[in-house]
Amino acid sequence: MHCTSDTLASPFDPRQAAQARRDGLLQQGRYLEGTAGALMTGEYSSLDRGLSASQAIDMLRREAADAETIYQAYVLDGQRNLLGTLSLRELILAAPDQPIERIMVRDVICVGTSTGQEEVARLVREHDLLAVPVLDEAGRLVGIVTCDDAIDVVVEEATEDFHKGALITNHVGNLKEATIGLLYRKRVLWLVLLVFGNLFSGAGIAAFEETIAAHIALVFFLPLLVDSGGNAGAQSATLMVRGLATGEVVLRDWLRMLTRECAVALALGGTMAIAAASLGMLRGGPEIAVIVASSMLVIVLIGSLIGMSLPFMLSRLKLDPATASGPLVTSIADAAGVLVYFGIASQVLGL
Amino acid sequence: MHCTSDTLASPFDPRQAAQARRDGLLQQGRYLEGTAGALMTGEYSSLDRGLSASQAIDMLRREAADAETIYQAYVLDGQRNLLGTLSLRELILAAPDQPIERIMVRDVICVGTSTGQEEVARLVREHDLLAVPVLDEAGRLVGIVTCDDAIDVVVEEATEDFHKGALITNHVGNLKEATIGLLYRKRVLWLVLLVFGNLFSGAGIAAFEETIAAHIALVFFLPLLVDSGGNAGAQSATLMVRGLATGEVVLRDWLRMLTRECAVALALGGTMAIAAASLGMLRGGPEIAVIVASSMLVIVLIGSLIGMSLPFMLSRLKLDPATASGPLVTSIADAAGVLVYFGIASQVLGL
Repeated sequence: MHCTSDTLASPFDPRQAAQARRDGLLQQGRYLEGTAGALMTGEYSSLDRGLSASQAIDMLRREAADAETIYQAYVLDGQRNLLGTLSLRELILAAPDQPIERIMVRDVICVGTSTGQEEVARLVREHDLLAVPVLDEAGRLVGIVTCDDAIDVVVEEATEDFHKGALITNHVGNLKEATIGLLYRKRVLWLVLLVFGNLFSGAGIAAFEETIAAHIALVFFLPLLVDSGGNAGAQSATLMVRGLATGEVVLRDWLRMLTRECAVALALGGTMAIAAASLGMLRGGPEIAVIVASSMLVIVLIGSLIGMSLPFMLSRLKLDPATASGPLVTSIADAAGVLVYFGIASQVLGL
Repeated sequence: MHCTSDTLASPFDPRQAAQARRDGLLQQGRYLEGTAGALMTGEYSSLDRGLSASQAIDMLRREAADAETIYQAYVLDGQRNLLGTLSLRELILAAPDQPIERIMVRDVICVGTSTGQEEVARLVREHDLLAVPVLDEAGRLVGIVTCDDAIDVVVEEATEDFHKGALITNHVGNLKEATIGLLYRKRVLWLVLLVFGNLFSGAGIAAFEETIAAHIALVFFLPLLVDSGGNAGAQSATLMVRGLATGEVVLRDWLRMLTRECAVALALGGTMAIAAASLGMLRGGPEIAVIVASSMLVIVLIGSLIGMSLPFMLSRLKLDPATASGPLVTSIADAAGVLVYFGIASQVLGL
């Protein structure tokens, strides 16, 4: 969010500023983990609006020992309202007696204390910032988040997304130090849910027990057909989850992504159907080849579309799309795969 | 890698420095993508060793318009050998006539032009650097990689790992702009390989065709048992791949990780076996319950151990462990699962 800083303001008071900074530090204990408030440091460099460039440099020289960074400084009024920002580079380049109000940037990119850390890191990345100012609800400066904190956030968020994709509940922390109990608790929930989720596939198979009993050779192809739906779906889902996470893709792109995915899935399914058909011919003859090839095509198409759509659906429901990769997509695609395979088999074999 | 800069050196020549910088820029076309050489900029700030602090600040003021950053400067000799580094903060804090040779840091963290970009980003993260100097084979400074470039690398590398985990061949690029042909080519290879890979599962089932024909109710449990091995394996693999990628876990931790994984897998398998046993009782009676529960325990244990070990094995063979998550682990665990399930069933049912 952009802040504009064209407000009338009262003169800057250094003692007030120091007190405010201590307030900022005290408040940090109250900020929710994963927000800008929890991430920020209160040790920013501040300047009074009335200074000249050389006076500002002197002030930064005095702050240098304590401030997190003196390369980006913030011009505040007496209430800690953010009037503008300027870099040490700009100060050094300016004429010594030039008022900093003439140099400073008034249209400042900043965030609130409750802004998510992922969004903060995204802003740092997008605008190549050294630091982002953090404002409280009243619009006063309470801290900054620097570039090096943003890098750590990016790595942390990526790890969380990886874990979510494998349906591990959040915040495993350092893997080497994780206890048996912690790992158990983070993994067991979804594993058990998926056991019951896979009942649908089981029920699908049970519905076709007679077909299977009559043509036992059909089970040979079950893993490679059903898994192909899951594999293709996992690919689609992974691409889309990552695309949404990095901002390359947004919700309104859904229809265009869907159309393209249909085309890609048909091409992939077609290629895999040829592979499946050759196996079918070798193993069971022309009828089996037809069943297996057509099943493969439909299964890959359905699996890919499920995989591609699930992240969008979760995103639309304001849930994290990251859970939509891997095991979740695979389990849904499995059930569809079973129904398609045995459904087609029943049709072709006249059962 | 740390550079030490206690070498005798000839006086600094600004024209030579400018020429060298142009050389650096020209050379960039020759560097392999994904290395420090390809990532760096030749627009660094350099200083002669004989300057005082105030002279150095003046020099940086003159360079400010062109240099990528003046906040970190590099002290060079006439051959562009790196003698030391110092920050603008240190210069501002120093007495104006203090020689910079007294202030500069001689033990500089730097990389070579062929260093991988992932390693560069890791150094930036670990040491909270604003910039990392890049040296050529002769040890001369040719460029720098700044913090904002490092953030982009981290995001890019995370995306590549996600894609590898779903067995998408590298470098999809911007997802929104990817063509149908590109997506097809990046996905088809592994999908077809897995079709043939899943023949092992199919062969496993075929080996037990008589068992299945005699007790058709067994197929009802096939998806939930076999998938559980894959799901647990995918979790283990994901944790380990990410742990290796972020440096939390290293190769020699393998045995300790294995022991812990056994314990976690037994706990998870036990829980899921209880769930499976209840389903088995409801669906088929005590014998089926015993088969299903014991199969589940063994399958989850084997799946988890496969999932945990595969990243280590790939890493040991100097391959990227990131391919070891998702579909690859699942396919291997599937084959094991089929053999275990029907093997146990044959034993218990006396076939």
